[in-house]
Formats: sequence, structure tokens, C-alpha cells
Amino acid sequence: MLSLKEKKRLNLLKQKKYRQKYGFFIAEGDKIVKDFLRSDWEVHDLFVVKDWTANIQGEELQKNTRVHIIDRDELKKVSSLTTPHNVLAVVKIPERKTHFTPDPEKLVLMLDEIKDPGNLGTIIRTASWFGIHDILCSTNSVDVFNPKVIQSSMSALIHVRVWYQDLKKSLEQFKEADIPVYGTFLSGENIYEATLRSNGVILMGNESRGIAAELEPYISRKITIPAFLQPKRGTIESLNVATATGIICAEFRK
Amino acid sequence: MLSLKEKKRLNLLKQKKYRQKYGFFIAEGDKIVKDFLRSDWEVHDLFVVKDWTANIQGEELQKNTRVHIIDRDELKKVSSLTTPHNVLAVVKIPERKTHFTPDPEKLVLMLDEIKDPGNLGTIIRTASWFGIHDILCSTNSVDVFNPKVIQSSMSALIHVRVWYQDLKKSLEQFKEADIPVYGTFLSGENIYEATLRSNGVILMGNESRGIAAELEPYISRKITIPAFLQPKRGTIESLNVATATGIICAEFRK
Repeated sequence: MLSLKEKKRLNLLKQKKYRQKYGFFIAEGDKIVKDFLRSDWEVHDLFVVKDWTANIQGEELQKNTRVHIIDRDELKKVSSLTTPHNVLAVVKIPERKTHFTPDPEKLVLMLDEIKDPGNLGTIIRTASWFGIHDILCSTNSVDVFNPKVIQSSMSALIHVRVWYQDLKKSLEQFKEADIPVYGTFLSGENIYEATLRSNGVILMGNESRGIAAELEPYISRKITIPAFLQPKRGTIESLNVATATGIICAEFRK
Repeated sequence: MLSLKEKKRLNLLKQKKYRQKYGFFIAEGDKIVKDFLRSDWEVHDLFVVKDWTANIQGEELQKNTRVHIIDRDELKKVSSLTTPHNVLAVVKIPERKTHFTPDPEKLVLMLDEIKDPGNLGTIIRTASWFGIHDILCSTNSVDVFNPKVIQSSMSALIHVRVWYQDLKKSLEQFKEADIPVYGTFLSGENIYEATLRSNGVILMGNESRGIAAELEPYISRKITIPAFLQPKRGTIESLNVATATGIICAEFRK
């Protein structure tokens, strides 16, 4: 049974403001929740439909997790999914140092104002696959604990840290540390022909306007994914930013 | 002013059943609509907010397009977008031969039960970028004229034909024509080391279960995108199917 108070709290956690206030976010989906339970992220509450409880008994549970058995209809009322799965978890937002400090050994992703939650989630999943453990987002990017980001990241967040900070200031630090910054544009050095290093910053721009002009001076190399052919008529639409990130990460890591 | 009848018709077109019945689909967003107007796709109706009409006057319009000036509030009521743009178009679904016949010169994409509209739209956009003009979908895939597919494909549909057909039968035909079929799996030949041809079929599987077992016998080469490193703890989540498609298309086309 879901109390009115719990229902209200779960619905509030769909908003960034309340996630920041309470320090929790919601993860949904059978596989995603199981992944968080097995990780060192703290699962505070589990809301489980009755006939699925057997799937998360015993060693699957964390010591302090509170388990609430609820009806499928109740789950539907608090879920962000069109077709809810069997379980919803309230997970603690990990505390962390405020800033990422440049590390000359690492390859990191930097995202300038990614707005679409599906894109950010997909990029986190891609980063995890390619062993990129840090993503630096501009402060006006979509919130990483947005339910749709969690959904499309498929728990890859367990392996990737997402930092929100002033990108201009960060890029200044990278420059001082002599770390290369690769900016992705519609024209530039052909990514397949470029010699890429195993460290540095891969900078991707906003879905509509690309990379902000104020960040351009910090870019050491402009790279591009060439189109196969230009169509006879009209112009071709650019690649989706998450797809472009995937292709670029693959080129860096292969 | 939007009549009740028009409002009803626009809302019905959000469903596949009625799109098939009436032979129309909805395209939204300023850029997408402009792209369709400039293409040889037939834009039947335009619902435009008053202060934006100047953007689609004169030569921008097709000869037979009916223009309806409506209020922003009215647009909101029929839009599929959280934040509607300035215009909504009713576009004719092009008539076409029922089947794609194998062509030994072409590179085509084959999608086995892609369910997420955002994934299909992103894949269409990727195909367009890499000059792949045909996508064969299993009949149980998401409908290409779903508003979310149109949205995420960003009008790339103008350059790419999407066919729905029995994949098993199609693969039999490809086999008879001696055309190579590349199936994407979590293990197989490393995509970066494989010698890839400029023709053939790239087969991608469903978001959860991958490629159906009944299609496997027709695959001539199993390929994979290797992960950079496996994490110390637990398993790593696979790549999103649209991202994987992007990386594979890039490898074929570079």
C-alpha cells in the first residue's frame, strides 16, 4: 500500500528542484534497479509489485533498503514510464567534490548544453562502453538524475561520473595543463584520418546550435565526421549528437 | 481557427491505424516542415500560428497546400510536442511498391523489431548521413510515421526509404543473390579489424533481445563493437542500438 505522503514524495522527485532538496532520485526498470542494488550506490527505498518480490530477495538487497510492496496500479501512478516495470527504486545522490580537476592521463567527454534527456542517457551509456569515466556538462545541461536520463543510460551511471561545472573555466585549466581539446564541428579535420591521442577532452555541442562561440578559442583541434555523399537536392541533416559522440569515442578507443 | 473536425482528424493521425486509413502523417517543427515543403513529398495541410506565416510564403509553399492560420493555444492542443513550434504539417504517405528487391550494388540497413521511436528516427538520420538509402524493418517494428520517429529523424526520411517486410523472406532473397549479411552481436569479428565491403546488409537487433534466432542462419558474418575495458565489478551495459548503428555505418563508409 502506497501512502499519500509517499506518493507525493515520489512525484516530487520527478523534478530537479526536489531531487536537489532531498538528495534522492528515482530509478525504474527491473534490470536498472538490480544494477543499482548490486552497485555501491545506496538504494534507500524499493517499491515492488507483489508477484515480483521473489526477484529481489536475500543477497540481492542492500542492508538498509526499505522494501514496500505495492499494487501494479499504484506503481502506474508514480511511474514515469508509459509501461511500468515491476519495481521502482529511490536512490541516494552521491556526495562529491564540486569540481573535476584535469588529469593528463584521462580521456574525458565535455558536453555543452545537451538538452535532450535521451541524448544525455545514451552518451553516458556510450562513455561507459568505451571506458570514459568522466563527463563534464555545462551547468545549463539537462539534469543527469532526470528519470528519462536514468532510463536511457541503463545504469551506466554506475561506471561514469557526471560533473556540472563552468566549461570555460574548466577549459582554461585544461589549456594550462597542456591537455588537447577536440571540438566536433560540421567541418574540420576528418576524424578517420586524424591521429588521435588516448588522452584529452572530446567536446560536443548543443543539439541545435553546436558548440558555444566562447568555448571555441580553447579548442586545439577541430574534428568532423564526414558525410558519405551530399544529396542532389537540399542539404543533409547533421548526425544526432549522441550518435556523433558514439562514432567519435569509437575512433578514439579503437 | 481550428474546427472540431480538423482537431479530431489531427489527433487521430497520432495513431498508426488512422494514418494507414487516411494515408497521411503529421510532421512538426519549423525546420522539418520547411524541409518537407521543399521536397517532393506532398504537404496537404499546414497549420501555422499567425506571427509565423511570413516564414512560409510565396515560393516556399507547394501549389496544393492548404494553409490554416491558428492560435498558439490551438496548436498546443493538437501537437505531440511538449513545447510546440510554429507550424504543423499534414503530409501524404507516399505510395510505393510493396517490397524491396535485393540490389548487389547497395548497402542497406535491416532492423529486427526496433521498438523505440527515438531509436528508429535517429537511425534514419544516420542512414541519410552515410548515404544509405534503404532501411528494411520487420513488420513488428515501430511505425516510421509515428510523430516521435518523424521528430527524431529530422526530415532525413526525405532521403531514405523505409520498407516493412518479412525479414526472413528478404534474407532468403539476399542469400540467393549472394549478397553478404553482417549481423551485429555482443561477440563476433572486431568491426575495426574486419574487411568490410561497400555493399550488403547490416542487420541490427531489437533493443532488449538482439537479433531473432530465426534470422541467424542467414548471417554471413557476425560483427561486434568491442568495449574498451570490462569494469571490475558487474557487467557493462551494451551500446544503445542507434549508437551502435552509427558506429557500424561509419566503419562501412569511411
